[in-house]
Amino acid sequence: MIPAKGYAAQSAQTDLAPWDFERRELNPHDVQFDIQYCGVCHSDLHQIRDEWGGAIFPMVPGHEIVGKVVAVGSHVKKFKVGDIAGTGCLVDSCRTCDNCKDGLEQFCLNGMVGTYNSIGKDGVPTQGGYSNTIVVHEDFVLHISDKLDLAGAAPLLCAGITTYSPLRHWKVGKGHKLAVLGLGGLGHMAVKFGVAFGAEVTVLSSSPEKEADAKKLGAHQFVLTKDEAQLSAARGRFDFILDTVSAPHDINLYMALLRRDGVHICVGVPPTPYQLNAFSLIGGRKSLVGSLIGGLPETQEMLNFCAANNIVSEIEMIDIKDIHKAYDRMLKGDVKYRFVIDLATL
Amino acid sequence: MIPAKGYAAQSAQTDLAPWDFERRELNPHDVQFDIQYCGVCHSDLHQIRDEWGGAIFPMVPGHEIVGKVVAVGSHVKKFKVGDIAGTGCLVDSCRTCDNCKDGLEQFCLNGMVGTYNSIGKDGVPTQGGYSNTIVVHEDFVLHISDKLDLAGAAPLLCAGITTYSPLRHWKVGKGHKLAVLGLGGLGHMAVKFGVAFGAEVTVLSSSPEKEADAKKLGAHQFVLTKDEAQLSAARGRFDFILDTVSAPHDINLYMALLRRDGVHICVGVPPTPYQLNAFSLIGGRKSLVGSLIGGLPETQEMLNFCAANNIVSEIEMIDIKDIHKAYDRMLKGDVKYRFVIDLATL
Repeated sequence: MIPAKGYAAQSAQTDLAPWDFERRELNPHDVQFDIQYCGVCHSDLHQIRDEWGGAIFPMVPGHEIVGKVVAVGSHVKKFKVGDIAGTGCLVDSCRTCDNCKDGLEQFCLNGMVGTYNSIGKDGVPTQGGYSNTIVVHEDFVLHISDKLDLAGAAPLLCAGITTYSPLRHWKVGKGHKLAVLGLGGLGHMAVKFGVAFGAEVTVLSSSPEKEADAKKLGAHQFVLTKDEAQLSAARGRFDFILDTVSAPHDINLYMALLRRDGVHICVGVPPTPYQLNAFSLIGGRKSLVGSLIGGLPETQEMLNFCAANNIVSEIEMIDIKDIHKAYDRMLKGDVKYRFVIDLATL
Repeated sequence: MIPAKGYAAQSAQTDLAPWDFERRELNPHDVQFDIQYCGVCHSDLHQIRDEWGGAIFPMVPGHEIVGKVVAVGSHVKKFKVGDIAGTGCLVDSCRTCDNCKDGLEQFCLNGMVGTYNSIGKDGVPTQGGYSNTIVVHEDFVLHISDKLDLAGAAPLLCAGITTYSPLRHWKVGKGHKLAVLGLGGLGHMAVKFGVAFGAEVTVLSSSPEKEADAKKLGAHQFVLTKDEAQLSAARGRFDFILDTVSAPHDINLYMALLRRDGVHICVGVPPTPYQLNAFSLIGGRKSLVGSLIGGLPETQEMLNFCAANNIVSEIEMIDIKDIHKAYDRMLKGDVKYRFVIDLATL
């Protein structure tokens, strides 16, 4: 086994703390890479607190992982030592179901294996990127261009693909008016991709201080959602809304901003059900849809697109010992726009 | 003015009773037709009871109207005396907004004029089809083939187009598995259209006695929704669900029956909001959409399709004096599958 160290939660009640553990010896198709940076996703906190249930402890969180390949299995063709590599939210799937065959492994009908807080095909719990090294089957490792700032690239593996994938799937681009609801880790990536795809992008936010940032990120318009006059003026305006909000919110209010045949895309998961009036759908033949991260082929496509268009996440780098301070600030929305752990500080 | 008689509610508290009123003299583009049959829609009862608010009394309900043209205005080109004509849920719209120009007058951005319980462009309240004659602008009158049973054709103007339109818009047909949720006035038309379009049609119903009828209407499969084993076996099976249920129901239960990228189409309007779990959308990239009747061009297309394929509604004919008995049975779901008033009994 390969000795590894990381920060783990030993239970839902304990904070993350240093922990020594082991990674598996490389199988013929495995890639080992030493982790340089790992993004901090809100779901890391949900899971170490067991807020979604079924948590497996000890748990090393982290699924926005980038680093440098240090070893490859005997049959690995796609990577060599020294390559820059990344891994996102999943590290395995059945590869045989219709969804896997379509390159949508996140919807594996036999259950995809999460990068952490999941049981691998070998029966061993998976451990994530708040650690110094990781071993992943090459099919679930992504190439990352050396043109990209590596720390800023880490959040592309979750926040990036989560927003890129639905914008591509619903073909958002030139001639479209796109609203991005919520300007956080996901929302700021949605703005960057929406602008890159040629859409007219409006940020919808309840925080007036976000307006300047929204414009800096490339947004063309800003609507302050707590200003009823601004909201009312935006009725029927948008072709698409990308809703990144994970807190409970009145979805009917926003769907009224869509044009006929408009599409409201949810990528957040609020803890309580949406209260959806049937008329929000029926009046204007509107669609409410959801999207979940992205499959491996599309994640690679997104990373290549980012390299070609010089797109990375806006980040604040932190030392791993400050992770709980970062969580506290994240809970207050006080981050521009993603914390990234520098694993050199481990 | 043209003398007319009908059955009207004088207030939300009074039952329908005979009432003499007037139709406007024909304008150059108006068509007058004597009404032979009018379908009974649940929304008639909602509106005479003012359950949706804003009701205008006296009110003659009815928006599934067929009859024979008896007079045409001087500029009318599309109809002549003796033609069979029909009118559905709307009798006017602005004709200039984007939605009207797209032939989707039901979404008129300046407000479509309903066939009853609405204020016409002339400022006079509109009155519906529980009456002997009606005057409508030719743009909102439909041609009905003499090949069709006229009484069975009446419900096509609302129940028919309400189910035809979304099946066409979302291109449901050969190779698709379509589930129809609820086998009532709308549901039984959805089965007929789904089968005619080449889909494999399954009826989802909580009533075991509906199975035989579902098969008789052409459905290929039946799932008894209160049988957990049957429901569980249908998980991930359908490409589309057409949800015709207007009573509160757990939409998450049904969305779990959709395949990846499946579409749940709502055409009913429950009185309380849907409680929608975000994961019902996100897990499998599913869509929840709505559709509202149909525009005039598509309604004509639907009527032509029905004539070519010999499709009409299953009906029970009633005398107009029995309308409240019919409402009572409708509330219990005791109708196969649409009441139609024979206006000869007025």
